[in-house]
Amino acid sequence: MSTACIIIIGNEILSGRTQDVNINWLAVELNNIGIRLKEARVIPDIPQAIIKAVNECRAVYDYVFTTGGIGPTHDDITSECIAQAFGVPYARNKEAETILTEYYGLENLNEARLRMCTMPEGAALIPNPISIAPGFSVGNVYVMAGVPGIMQAMFDHLKHGLTGGKPILSETVSVFLTEGKIAAELTKVQETFPDVEIGSYPFVREGKLGTSLVARHEDATRLAEAKAAIVQMVQSFDGEIAKDE
Amino acid sequence: MSTACIIIIGNEILSGRTQDVNINWLAVELNNIGIRLKEARVIPDIPQAIIKAVNECRAVYDYVFTTGGIGPTHDDITSECIAQAFGVPYARNKEAETILTEYYGLENLNEARLRMCTMPEGAALIPNPISIAPGFSVGNVYVMAGVPGIMQAMFDHLKHGLTGGKPILSETVSVFLTEGKIAAELTKVQETFPDVEIGSYPFVREGKLGTSLVARHEDATRLAEAKAAIVQMVQSFDGEIAKDE
Repeated sequence: MSTACIIIIGNEILSGRTQDVNINWLAVELNNIGIRLKEARVIPDIPQAIIKAVNECRAVYDYVFTTGGIGPTHDDITSECIAQAFGVPYARNKEAETILTEYYGLENLNEARLRMCTMPEGAALIPNPISIAPGFSVGNVYVMAGVPGIMQAMFDHLKHGLTGGKPILSETVSVFLTEGKIAAELTKVQETFPDVEIGSYPFVREGKLGTSLVARHEDATRLAEAKAAIVQMVQSFDGEIAKDE
Repeated sequence: MSTACIIIIGNEILSGRTQDVNINWLAVELNNIGIRLKEARVIPDIPQAIIKAVNECRAVYDYVFTTGGIGPTHDDITSECIAQAFGVPYARNKEAETILTEYYGLENLNEARLRMCTMPEGAALIPNPISIAPGFSVGNVYVMAGVPGIMQAMFDHLKHGLTGGKPILSETVSVFLTEGKIAAELTKVQETFPDVEIGSYPFVREGKLGTSLVARHEDATRLAEAKAAIVQMVQSFDGEIAKDE
């Protein structure tokens, strides 16, 4: 099973100005192609922070996906930092330059836009059908835009080159019972199904406390068995099963 | 200026099941009390991952805030891991036990619920007005629930004990001009105001590409000067100023 880490590069997330939605979108997509997201980090637009996080994460996980910081303005420093992290030159990418020249015309390809075709040497481009300036990958690090729509288009392209596995399936049983009441019996279900990941998440709905029990496994048959055991456990408490959201 | 890191502990975020909202809420709150959020991590419910992240982050930042994993079920392992991270015993907290006993009554205080009053020795409690079972702090690490409403109530209480500074103020100028067009002039504004953090964030609104320019500084007067320079720069391009969202 391949593993992955997401690095969100952006002061705007850390300042609270912007609610991140990239982690969740990528988490769902990675799950669908059978890659396990093991960590996500949000870090500031500071060179040492970017270089450190990229080098730590690329050593530990099969795939690292970064978002943010590849535009043309002074605060877009991701590409230079990736080059430094890999210890390779930060240089003009001819293929990217051709793409931007065709789009903007030579007369509009100013210094700022040329920065968007300056990358770690040897980078492979990730097409950008929305705003043209491409992302890129170096080794196991995939560098994408921060704007959700652009990031999503980039990922939709690059995902075909990733080595995934079976999607991880999940089943949820939501019930108007508190965690504290069912915890001991839930532990028994988990012990009966040690290969199934069973999570318990309290919720408040219409003023009533409840718990969502989520089982996750690659195999649908095994998952159905675990779900049946959860439902049976819940019914032993006369638990009212809530409609799952 | 104090610094902070958030650690979101939860498989449900990494699986894509749940969209995290705790990072953004805490980011806004920390900003309001003049504490700089420098990093956020989302990590799985795995002991080594929790211990490693907590120890790395508490060594680097003034404050570490964790959310998630302090409930009564088998997947709630945060408290034990914090005890291990600090190398202190994981033991029954008398004060927490009294609170839970009063709430549930002795007859309903089962083993699972007693887990919620088992904590690192020496922990200071963080009150939980919503679902009673308290969070806690050890050293510079503040351990809170994952459910947003509960986490928020906990933070509203504990924030009065934090050492912050002046809030970081921000001003946004949104304009229907692309980043690539204004980047060089924006760099000049940034160079004129090296003490002001100026970020540039592209957006698509009503089918039109635009850029939000965000200036951040502690001092309102200095910030107003930077904003005026940004507006002047934008007007030099005949940029249509968009209503800020």
